[in-house]
Amino acid sequence: MIGKKLAKNAKKIDRFLLNFLNKQKKSLLVKPMIYGLISGGKKIRSTIIFDTGKLFGIKEKKLLDICAAVECIHSYSLIHDDLPCMDNDSIRRGKPSTHIKFGESTAVLAGNSLLTLAFEIISSKNLLSSNQKNEVIKLLSNCSGHTGIAGGQELDLKFENKKKNFNQILDMQRKKTGKLFNFCLQSVAIVGNKKKKEKNTLGKIGEDIGLLFQLTDDFLDVKGSRKLVGKPIKKDRKKGKSTLINLIGYKKSLRYADRLKKKVLLKLKKHGKNARDLIDTIKFIQERNF
Amino acid sequence: MIGKKLAKNAKKIDRFLLNFLNKQKKSLLVKPMIYGLISGGKKIRSTIIFDTGKLFGIKEKKLLDICAAVECIHSYSLIHDDLPCMDNDSIRRGKPSTHIKFGESTAVLAGNSLLTLAFEIISSKNLLSSNQKNEVIKLLSNCSGHTGIAGGQELDLKFENKKKNFNQILDMQRKKTGKLFNFCLQSVAIVGNKKKKEKNTLGKIGEDIGLLFQLTDDFLDVKGSRKLVGKPIKKDRKKGKSTLINLIGYKKSLRYADRLKKKVLLKLKKHGKNARDLIDTIKFIQERNF
Repeated sequence: MIGKKLAKNAKKIDRFLLNFLNKQKKSLLVKPMIYGLISGGKKIRSTIIFDTGKLFGIKEKKLLDICAAVECIHSYSLIHDDLPCMDNDSIRRGKPSTHIKFGESTAVLAGNSLLTLAFEIISSKNLLSSNQKNEVIKLLSNCSGHTGIAGGQELDLKFENKKKNFNQILDMQRKKTGKLFNFCLQSVAIVGNKKKKEKNTLGKIGEDIGLLFQLTDDFLDVKGSRKLVGKPIKKDRKKGKSTLINLIGYKKSLRYADRLKKKVLLKLKKHGKNARDLIDTIKFIQERNF
Repeated sequence: MIGKKLAKNAKKIDRFLLNFLNKQKKSLLVKPMIYGLISGGKKIRSTIIFDTGKLFGIKEKKLLDICAAVECIHSYSLIHDDLPCMDNDSIRRGKPSTHIKFGESTAVLAGNSLLTLAFEIISSKNLLSSNQKNEVIKLLSNCSGHTGIAGGQELDLKFENKKKNFNQILDMQRKKTGKLFNFCLQSVAIVGNKKKKEKNTLGKIGEDIGLLFQLTDDFLDVKGSRKLVGKPIKKDRKKGKSTLINLIGYKKSLRYADRLKKKVLLKLKKHGKNARDLIDTIKFIQERNF
């Protein structure tokens, strides 16, 4: 059932993005941008955003632009992460990575253009007020740049083949993966005109969900199959990546993830049945078997 | 005299940027970001923005954030242009390029972070209204992404060692260099709450100034010295770059640039003595001898 919901949401966001790009002037980069953006992605972040909207009774159409922007940022980060100078991965979502398909310079530029597009989408005409757009853009840039995703990726690369402790690894993963999930939940609170405290609380829950998501990714890298995850597995150990699993082992990491999930679910309890969809998605993330 | 003005403005923008970064959370990327952003840049775009402000009596402090954002975008594009997979330049502003100094992955991520920072600066607390911020961000993203700088760089690389015609080369240079100058002038018109028509007119003038700037760059590549331009010269021909000079020759290109400058100055005439500073800077650009 969750699979169906994800597929429906992914289709909705893909349509929005294609429509947005179609209305713009054409360029040579549109094709590689679409290649990295549309095909095969699960758009799990968009579903998290829609689910969070249900906490406050916010309609999906009011959140569409935010979803689209998040998927642009996510896809840009994947395209760049796969580059030879980064993780040097030639397979993504079961297909050749963008730089394998279109060349390295085009992949860099398509990634840059997707990052830029995210801000263009939010600042374009949509159902958000000017104040909301600004607040969303400020948060999105903060979660994406050197204090967020880009900073996390830098740490990830610098940590390779180094002995890093528990807190250092978590800090890296919070930036690399957690921050964009922080944005997913916090931006919905912005659209719902919530108070600062509630926005922060939602952001923190999002960051934990992101961490949970990253841990599951790490588990899949150890125990999944290439078919299941759409890319070669057992890469983390080969590359000397600093993961929780490599530090404290698989079983202890599983237990940590379980505690983290329980903490998140407890925090969502106050929203009662409005949190049902979000909770289902979180459980699905942890048990995922794509 | 213009040299002094440029130096004063550069200092002002550098201070603003350092201050902005200092207030943020620290990250490993701040050092390479500052390396690419602060040192040695002439910040000519900021001076153009301040000069344009004088057309409408807009104070510099109202334009500072826009200047800072533009310099972030400009520096990011230089860092990425220099990458091995792009123009593979190891010297910039008389120093090792960012990827030579800090490594390739760090250069990519520092560039990405500067691109992101531009949007964070505009959307942060400053003297612009929410509506103005949004309009500025929409324009900045449009001028930076696949319809602007990134798209222009893609064309530049694809045009290497190809026979391209006059219009194709101008289209590429308008995107690669012109669009950010379009933004410099048009964003000031946004801050001045000008009508759509005037905003467009200003943008077009900016694009022509950008083209003029690019042509001067191309002239310097042929006739300048390494010391003068801060990087090796005669690269365009070696790399088989599609420049106007390589297509129609040096003299004809000079005449074209001269006509372009006259066209721009004519358009600025209606602003009377308010345009004096902008005109001085434009003349300086064409005759530049840094």
